[in-house]
Amino acid sequence: MLLCDIGNTSYHFLDDSRDYRESVTAFNPSSITQKVYYISVNASVGKVLETLDNWINLKTHVDMSNYYETMGVDRIFACEAIQNGVIVDAGSAITVDIVKDGKFQGGFIYPGITAMSKTYENISPALAYPFNFDLDLTVLPKNSGDAISYGYLKTFYSEVVSHEMEIYLTGGDAKEFTKIFSNAKVDEILIFKGMSKILKAN
Amino acid sequence: MLLCDIGNTSYHFLDDSRDYRESVTAFNPSSITQKVYYISVNASVGKVLETLDNWINLKTHVDMSNYYETMGVDRIFACEAIQNGVIVDAGSAITVDIVKDGKFQGGFIYPGITAMSKTYENISPALAYPFNFDLDLTVLPKNSGDAISYGYLKTFYSEVVSHEMEIYLTGGDAKEFTKIFSNAKVDEILIFKGMSKILKAN
Repeated sequence: MLLCDIGNTSYHFLDDSRDYRESVTAFNPSSITQKVYYISVNASVGKVLETLDNWINLKTHVDMSNYYETMGVDRIFACEAIQNGVIVDAGSAITVDIVKDGKFQGGFIYPGITAMSKTYENISPALAYPFNFDLDLTVLPKNSGDAISYGYLKTFYSEVVSHEMEIYLTGGDAKEFTKIFSNAKVDEILIFKGMSKILKAN
Repeated sequence: MLLCDIGNTSYHFLDDSRDYRESVTAFNPSSITQKVYYISVNASVGKVLETLDNWINLKTHVDMSNYYETMGVDRIFACEAIQNGVIVDAGSAITVDIVKDGKFQGGFIYPGITAMSKTYENISPALAYPFNFDLDLTVLPKNSGDAISYGYLKTFYSEVVSHEMEIYLTGGDAKEFTKIFSNAKVDEILIFKGMSKILKAN
């Protein structure tokens, strides 16, 4: 069985043995002849896939009544994968979604590492520091670099842990965030788990 | 007595009766002949003022041992104004500084409203929503606009209130933030209070 989660920059595939990525610009989806179950947040790729019979959009199989119209389909499928917890999907944006007893409770969007780094730099060149993920977030900073890292990371940390639920980390920057959420479960195929679940239920 | 707090875009004056602003680009500091006690985060204005005998830099009168080298002088003087509390100075950047028993404990820097708004917009045009300061931060969002407002405001709120101290709001965007920090004291002349205190002590 081949699953595919399509983002703005890549096709992320999972077959029975491994996950791998193909570039959105270089990859030709009609080169695959077997059945592919997919979700896509990429509207232009989505249009192409609608014309290919072997590409099956799993979005149409989800009960959308728990979710909202403009919510990214990747967030929806990550939520479908768990029963209870906070999902932190760290990419160009970081989405945080809360699931209780298998039901989506709501969620929020926070800037990703690259975006937030540029934000500080654009306010002032004096604030152009890389984020320090090894910073001790229990100590108030007394230098500019730490003051920026704390501003980005501790605010986010304080909110995420306030829900007092298990934390699931996924997305391209998941590993960086394990440094601040030390008890989190890292699950890079969380979205695929949601896709498998929906597929089995239908 | 004339006090002046100089930022990147304006001279902020306080005389005995009122506070007012002059543009950094248009205002000529040598047009004032009376004594002016000032602080400046603006390096190029600072250079000009050093050549004027009636402009007296108050930074040299502060005991810097409590602070750190690259800390903005405006933050230092705001800290000097209070004995206990969290100071939120909301401008192009938002600085948050904590003072206990008159001593600076540390602080952090968070993006201001305009900067953070651009951040979301730059990640994706789908995230270009104005922040809703009237959002109920106790409810997890179920729409994109609120998901962004919550991401910016609730994370910040959670961290600031975690210190369980009185909150002092100052800076150009202080009024917007009174909507989320409803028990905060708004004090638009907090920095001037610190300047007066240092001036009296010397």
